[in-house]
Amino acid sequence: MKAYQELSQRFRRLGLLGDALAVLGWDTAAMMPDGGAPARAEQSATVSVLIHELLTAPRVGELLAAAEAERALDDWQRANLAEMRRSHRHATAVPAALVERLSVAASECEMAWRSARPANDFTGLLPKLRQVLALTREQAEAKAAAFGCAPYDALLDQYEPGGRAAAIDTLFGELEGFLPALTQRVLEQQRRQPAPLPLEGPFDVGAQRALGLKLMTALGFDFAHGRLDVSHHPFCGGTPDDVRITTRFDPEDFTSAMMGVLHETGHALYERGLPAAWRNQPVGSARGMSIHESQSLLVEMQACRSDAFARFCAPLARAAFGRAGPAWQPDNLHRLSTRVEPGLIRVDADEVTYPAHVILRYRLERALLAGDLDLAELPGAWRDGMQALLGIVPPGDTDGCLQDIHWPSGAWGYFPTYTLGAMTAAQLFAAACDQLPGLIDDFARGDFSRLLGWLRTNVHEKGSRHSAEEILVQATGRPLGVAAFRRHLEARYLEPVLA
Amino acid sequence: MKAYQELSQRFRRLGLLGDALAVLGWDTAAMMPDGGAPARAEQSATVSVLIHELLTAPRVGELLAAAEAERALDDWQRANLAEMRRSHRHATAVPAALVERLSVAASECEMAWRSARPANDFTGLLPKLRQVLALTREQAEAKAAAFGCAPYDALLDQYEPGGRAAAIDTLFGELEGFLPALTQRVLEQQRRQPAPLPLEGPFDVGAQRALGLKLMTALGFDFAHGRLDVSHHPFCGGTPDDVRITTRFDPEDFTSAMMGVLHETGHALYERGLPAAWRNQPVGSARGMSIHESQSLLVEMQACRSDAFARFCAPLARAAFGRAGPAWQPDNLHRLSTRVEPGLIRVDADEVTYPAHVILRYRLERALLAGDLDLAELPGAWRDGMQALLGIVPPGDTDGCLQDIHWPSGAWGYFPTYTLGAMTAAQLFAAACDQLPGLIDDFARGDFSRLLGWLRTNVHEKGSRHSAEEILVQATGRPLGVAAFRRHLEARYLEPVLA
Repeated sequence: MKAYQELSQRFRRLGLLGDALAVLGWDTAAMMPDGGAPARAEQSATVSVLIHELLTAPRVGELLAAAEAERALDDWQRANLAEMRRSHRHATAVPAALVERLSVAASECEMAWRSARPANDFTGLLPKLRQVLALTREQAEAKAAAFGCAPYDALLDQYEPGGRAAAIDTLFGELEGFLPALTQRVLEQQRRQPAPLPLEGPFDVGAQRALGLKLMTALGFDFAHGRLDVSHHPFCGGTPDDVRITTRFDPEDFTSAMMGVLHETGHALYERGLPAAWRNQPVGSARGMSIHESQSLLVEMQACRSDAFARFCAPLARAAFGRAGPAWQPDNLHRLSTRVEPGLIRVDADEVTYPAHVILRYRLERALLAGDLDLAELPGAWRDGMQALLGIVPPGDTDGCLQDIHWPSGAWGYFPTYTLGAMTAAQLFAAACDQLPGLIDDFARGDFSRLLGWLRTNVHEKGSRHSAEEILVQATGRPLGVAAFRRHLEARYLEPVLA
Repeated sequence: MKAYQELSQRFRRLGLLGDALAVLGWDTAAMMPDGGAPARAEQSATVSVLIHELLTAPRVGELLAAAEAERALDDWQRANLAEMRRSHRHATAVPAALVERLSVAASECEMAWRSARPANDFTGLLPKLRQVLALTREQAEAKAAAFGCAPYDALLDQYEPGGRAAAIDTLFGELEGFLPALTQRVLEQQRRQPAPLPLEGPFDVGAQRALGLKLMTALGFDFAHGRLDVSHHPFCGGTPDDVRITTRFDPEDFTSAMMGVLHETGHALYERGLPAAWRNQPVGSARGMSIHESQSLLVEMQACRSDAFARFCAPLARAAFGRAGPAWQPDNLHRLSTRVEPGLIRVDADEVTYPAHVILRYRLERALLAGDLDLAELPGAWRDGMQALLGIVPPGDTDGCLQDIHWPSGAWGYFPTYTLGAMTAAQLFAAACDQLPGLIDDFARGDFSRLLGWLRTNVHEKGSRHSAEEILVQATGRPLGVAAFRRHLEARYLEPVLA
């Protein structure tokens, strides 16, 4: 086991450098003044390049071959070795110079996006975005050549190990088979009912934050190992022992930040629950983005938009903002939190129309990467896509193709994992409810401990010991499908059919 | 110049990694939850060890020798090369394993200090502090052997390049020759006068922060390139393009945080003013801690405790806290800001009694490092020293030997630079006043631009192109002495002698 032991030491160092990079990334989004951006881009690029150099050192290839021949490894060690090989394969497929250029270009483009979005200035962002796309395409082609797969699959594999566009096409096709009709039925049903009462703002940002902290605590977030801060684009960053989530507060609508906080808390609980014995080893990391997103959506969509959660949350919200009256009763809050309405902004979308946002982005990024769509045509293609999929068109790019940080920051191939995650969440939650009778009633008492325990055992503590599909089969008895997601939407959003 | 060019590339990478480490350090002090400490210690240690490995690679030694033989280098490049050699000499003197152990031990001890100080628990801190001291001693001995100097001088050289204990002994001896008598005269004079009127609290922390931001802006702090945050121990961190200063707010005494902010702003202006053309090169770094401290003390003590500054600040303070009356008049504020009173806490000390705090720590750390004093005896030795030097004794270790972060965090040999800095500040400020007639009157209008311009030219933009002594001689015409500091104290604190 000598080769494995040396690899384990080397990957521990890589893991710690990755942690340092994660802290820099959090700081960039949540703390850094704008003027620090160029230097920060160079700092992050330097650490990225070092990681790349250490990972692609010839000795690592030799050690991997030697360790793969070692017999005494147990299952976790063998899974760890397989994840090491996976990282190594990704790293060796791309030259170090390209890694550095992409890191710098993405940092600069992300900073430019911060001002381009509010200024509705897609044209201003275009040169930097072109550079990110060109370098991403180079990266995709290099990896595709090395792995013997399609360039898009090579990018997807970075976020969703083993993911393939063909499988996504099938699942998204099934969604498109029932979602438009379901959405229309839900909207018609909503029109027949009186509208929920609005919650009148403004809502003090300090009180919003305090409410968020209270809900995070109830869900099991440990503030000795994490923080809540503010950033342009909410995210979960940091490291398993110091998980940093962010939100953005809207003084006119507290539910937006609140649901965002609940969502990121789901991500945070996953990171925090990763197997402590395997910290800073590849097998100790999160499995991939569909599982990661399933954890945030399970908390936000499955648990915290339930009727039971509204009963728990209503008195806390009334106390937080000093309000009362019928709008603040659980039933009305629940109706607000399950309101369906086609909208322009993905992160504000309800769970019924969300997949359409993802399908749009998935198709556009595939077309952009394939060269079938020029970036200059993106705003028009975006508007056409929104019209076709959701029947609405953004008045400008701010709420159109500039709304997401993903493409400017270099995260191409990431978007489909959101909807894979939504489906995974529905399937996992259905299994949890089957296995834990009365689970949803716990939420009305603000008790999420049985849910967290189940997730710890069935998802979090497995790290990357198994594939996403294996995790799902072990926890739910079947691979990923659309059935549980469809049943969930129908049960929550459609009136009971008369027997 | 091929060797020099390659060195320059390598040191740029080292500089960027050092920046990343600085951001981690800032985060540790200002943001990180306690539970993140063990992982953070390992992250920082990993980056430190990498820096050490890259700096001590055999190729660097070869390149240094080759570059030192190159003829075409200009003065800046030659100074840069000399600083590279200096770093290399420090790094190669100590084995990598010791660097890592010291980094981990210091991070852990610093975290333990955070809780030990409020708990008055020196005994609880002792094991971790012993480890830091033992490893520091090992480091000092290794460097002393390599440089052919005394172990204490080897530590001092890390903070004050070229500094020697013998020179400090002389200067500190001169201070001791006049300070005790001067202090007594000031105290007697104060007793003869009516006491300044107290400023009645409480002072809203948000208003304190807003006042701090206003003063920082007036002094020339650029918030596109920096931040103000809160930490246990105020400091200036971050990088020249993103300078992070911290303070701690006392709701009962706003002047404590305010003067702290002004002090750290002095450090920040220096960092921000370092030569941009030499970013991430050794010659582009701050010269050393006596110059660094001179910049904070010049702003805090020389400029911002002046009568003119009180005239500028008084209306701002009244507006910030909604107060009025005789206590809030410039004259009273000035008398409060120049009040002399022997106290327990170094960072709260006035400039007359401050050197006694430094002399105590300097003697104690020399004795601890030399093995003449055991750490277990530190609390007693501290009390004895305070009695002898300042005539007061702390009731516990919280306000005694636990008050400073330096020893727990591994910064041994640092303390004397505070008083060297005070003397340097007095000498620089006297020269600036000579060269810029009416300079102090600018401050009454909140105009610090002539002062900042002078400091940029005479100190900041020189980076490490010259030694501290050269900088002082160029700017003031003479090497460091006690004369200007003495004249400053007598002019400010003693009644005009009748002619």
